[in-house]
Amino acid sequence: MAPANDILSNYSTLQKARLQYETVLPAVLERSFKISYGGPTTSAANSEDIAALFKSMYGQPTAIVEPSESSTLSSAPLKVGVVLSGGQAAGGHNVIAGIFDYLEKNVPGSTLYGFLGGPGGIMKGKYAVITADFLYPYRNQGGFDIIRSGRDKIESDEQMKMAKSTVESLDLDGLVVIGGDDSNTNACVLAEYFKNEGLKTRVIGCPKTIDGDLKSKEVPVSFGFDTACKIFSELIGNVMIDSKSAAKYYHFVRLMGRAASHVTLECALQTHPNITLVGEEVAAKKMTLKEVKDYVLDVVVKRAAAGRNYGVVLIPEGLIDFVPEISVLIAELNDILAKTTVDKEGEWKKDLTAASRSVFDILPPTIQEQLLLERDPHGNVQVSKIEMEKMLMEMVAADLKVKKAEGTFKGSFNCQNHFFGYEGRCGLPSNFDANYTYALGYTAGALLQSGLTGYMASVNNLTAPTKEWTAGGTPLTSLMQVERRKGKNKPVIRKALVELDGAPFTAFAAVRDDWAINDRFRNPGPIQFEGPAANESNFTLLLEQGVLSAIN
Amino acid sequence: MAPANDILSNYSTLQKARLQYETVLPAVLERSFKISYGGPTTSAANSEDIAALFKSMYGQPTAIVEPSESSTLSSAPLKVGVVLSGGQAAGGHNVIAGIFDYLEKNVPGSTLYGFLGGPGGIMKGKYAVITADFLYPYRNQGGFDIIRSGRDKIESDEQMKMAKSTVESLDLDGLVVIGGDDSNTNACVLAEYFKNEGLKTRVIGCPKTIDGDLKSKEVPVSFGFDTACKIFSELIGNVMIDSKSAAKYYHFVRLMGRAASHVTLECALQTHPNITLVGEEVAAKKMTLKEVKDYVLDVVVKRAAAGRNYGVVLIPEGLIDFVPEISVLIAELNDILAKTTVDKEGEWKKDLTAASRSVFDILPPTIQEQLLLERDPHGNVQVSKIEMEKMLMEMVAADLKVKKAEGTFKGSFNCQNHFFGYEGRCGLPSNFDANYTYALGYTAGALLQSGLTGYMASVNNLTAPTKEWTAGGTPLTSLMQVERRKGKNKPVIRKALVELDGAPFTAFAAVRDDWAINDRFRNPGPIQFEGPAANESNFTLLLEQGVLSAIN
Repeated sequence: MAPANDILSNYSTLQKARLQYETVLPAVLERSFKISYGGPTTSAANSEDIAALFKSMYGQPTAIVEPSESSTLSSAPLKVGVVLSGGQAAGGHNVIAGIFDYLEKNVPGSTLYGFLGGPGGIMKGKYAVITADFLYPYRNQGGFDIIRSGRDKIESDEQMKMAKSTVESLDLDGLVVIGGDDSNTNACVLAEYFKNEGLKTRVIGCPKTIDGDLKSKEVPVSFGFDTACKIFSELIGNVMIDSKSAAKYYHFVRLMGRAASHVTLECALQTHPNITLVGEEVAAKKMTLKEVKDYVLDVVVKRAAAGRNYGVVLIPEGLIDFVPEISVLIAELNDILAKTTVDKEGEWKKDLTAASRSVFDILPPTIQEQLLLERDPHGNVQVSKIEMEKMLMEMVAADLKVKKAEGTFKGSFNCQNHFFGYEGRCGLPSNFDANYTYALGYTAGALLQSGLTGYMASVNNLTAPTKEWTAGGTPLTSLMQVERRKGKNKPVIRKALVELDGAPFTAFAAVRDDWAINDRFRNPGPIQFEGPAANESNFTLLLEQGVLSAIN
Repeated sequence: MAPANDILSNYSTLQKARLQYETVLPAVLERSFKISYGGPTTSAANSEDIAALFKSMYGQPTAIVEPSESSTLSSAPLKVGVVLSGGQAAGGHNVIAGIFDYLEKNVPGSTLYGFLGGPGGIMKGKYAVITADFLYPYRNQGGFDIIRSGRDKIESDEQMKMAKSTVESLDLDGLVVIGGDDSNTNACVLAEYFKNEGLKTRVIGCPKTIDGDLKSKEVPVSFGFDTACKIFSELIGNVMIDSKSAAKYYHFVRLMGRAASHVTLECALQTHPNITLVGEEVAAKKMTLKEVKDYVLDVVVKRAAAGRNYGVVLIPEGLIDFVPEISVLIAELNDILAKTTVDKEGEWKKDLTAASRSVFDILPPTIQEQLLLERDPHGNVQVSKIEMEKMLMEMVAADLKVKKAEGTFKGSFNCQNHFFGYEGRCGLPSNFDANYTYALGYTAGALLQSGLTGYMASVNNLTAPTKEWTAGGTPLTSLMQVERRKGKNKPVIRKALVELDGAPFTAFAAVRDDWAINDRFRNPGPIQFEGPAANESNFTLLLEQGVLSAIN
């Protein structure tokens, strides 16, 4: 770890200014508090299985932080560990700052250990002691670089024992796992295991992911989503105005966000693109690849008729997984190519089913080639390498060439493609994410001091002024269900996908046909930390919370 | 054109806030002024040729706007046209606003015509009359969408006559061409032609390009460079912190900027990446592709030895043109493939020279394939489609695989690649670009009212407070030289490339070895319009103007 001065000497003016930003703490976390409880909880689904798997954790009540005249909690110093797990999201540093400041203020003399490089650091017992000086340069800064992140999972018996050994040797009272759905599932497994092993180490999760697919009634949003969507929307807004100024390009933009389309939908609400594909809608309507392509084609043709040979198309990176026929084709290709050589004449195609054959045949040649050539070390097609935005671009271009020859298309169709992902994960957190994560960290501290384990820190009422935000804990088992993964039944936190009857999608669906043909472009611009745009919530949250009822 | 209200109803909070931003005008442009003149000028080179080509324009003196008790200029209303030419750059709208406001204030009753879709609009006589209401929604906004842009050139006799016909029928006193080096060359050709034809239409150019390669002593920077570099640096800064947080990826970032590496150099000064390739240095040192690759490889190996298997590499998009052996290879390929079929056994390679053959053989297979397959309609290799960042990634990866097998490399090398370009051209202009372009437009108005033609508007002293900026005009012929293009001698404005003994490169060269191995990452964050980071100049300008002497 570099000394603080070395880091600070390279800081930009804005990085330094953000160090001075004073996060606002919800009033309920500023004063002495007590925990009150709701009724017992069940799980998202498969409650019998979840109950059997988590005998100690299952059924715990929702916890609510409430103001109290005085605290009845012991102020004996605590030893707490914290770990950052999985992909980066803006605000991770402030969760750590929140835990640290909570302990400093409420349980002085406590020690905070930061496990290095993700859950692997817990297993290997690698950590840094987090002091005020060590923490200082990371306050309100993006990234997870204070202790880095990693994707290891603590799963096998051996790994669980390694984790146990570490928390025992550090004499940890608590462990905060900052991560996405899988990491929070893992946190619950650890909580159960530690409890059953008779350890005192309590485990609290914090909801992190730019994808926005880790949320529930009590956890309205995962941190990092707001900042990432704002950064992507800045770029989309810029590209959009470029498209209108040059009036000669369609920009096909693929957006990070894994299985869910929340990021794409939020960016659409922010920028008003001409075409937005939402994976969940494609799946719900069982759209074929041809139907998806035809939707894009139809808008392009209508815009050309209106004299507009330019536009912007948003595509969620998970789209490919939502088109079932592509998954089927890929499975067949994996089987066939394991035993057959691809011949130029296309004899090998005989082994495809008729349905897959017709899907393969409408793919552009470059994508066909990619499917046949780019294979992982096990010989399988690398789905993540398939650039869906290019696939659609080329399919639409091929159709328009035919229409042009027929005389039914008189426009032009030139494209640029983009992928926005890594750019949005480590930006300086928006004021919202800076305050939200600080409150999450503070809440995690409060839950740990209150003796709770197997909870996710939850901060709510997020569209009200920050002072009025509420805090509490959601039992991790209440978010779980059983899913089949790699041939085994596994308890997992249910992914929150875009709901087609939810407020954000409904608001979008009401205006998208207008956006398609007319130019209603909106440029949110770069994240501002001061001025009138500095404290705006994202539209997904405003719509879901009922603060907004429509998009203009 | 959409009505103003329709546009405004879609605006974001920040777009609306920027409408209210009050640009600061240099004091000298606020009051009555006179033009004073320097001595006669020559040209950048080939002065005899330039003098012969521009008999009327050649040798004009530098013009300086100076305070004066009262103005001696006629206040008879003027008719002025304006056109946006070539690629977008942030601030174009404010140039138009500057011209408009100048005319409103100093020559009331004047008319401003905006030619639609670039120089093609002049030839076709397509325009919009720019009124206060029409202009309002575009003030301080990015993009060229008010009248759009285009890449047509007014070159042939026929085209010149079309332009003449338009300016005659509109009875234009002046025409402002907002564009890059080629467009300003074209502006000078038009100025000469109009003068020789006895027209009253005077022509003034304005220096626009994000590439930063249109500059001289009197024109310290082209507009849009500041905003684009700030947007790219925001993204690079984010990716950089991502790289350090995950500690598992090298990010190879290709940056827009055509032939010159100014954008890449400025972004490097802003962010302190591990590796920065500067095209002009590669050319000056006559580096081979292998040498460029070896430089990258060397840094990766050294970082791995220090336990750092991650980092950021910046690559200017024009790099490929600076490696002479690649140009030679491509020329040979174009010849060979015109007459020979590529056979799998590689017999066709016999026709390559030994030098080109060895260059071809060190290229990664995917790039070899790209060179052989992706050809334009004339059968030529599409140089612009070659993704240099991928080429380098794959070459370095291949070498590291060998080293790994030998046991001389024990690290890991995983990569992500990016291209940042269109994202940076139409952002909301930084305060600097907003003020600079407004001053340029105002200056263009002053030069036109003063009866000048064949000048580029120049605003200088740009590192001082805006009130103290100076204004004037640089004769376009003074920036010119003769270059061979498509087999013909052409007068062109000399491109300003990165100077290896200039202050920006020198400052960079002094610290890059430290940046290479150690992490000195700097995140400038998103452009701010308020707060302590809102009015920062770019480092290139600060170093060139001697305000800064080094980078920390």
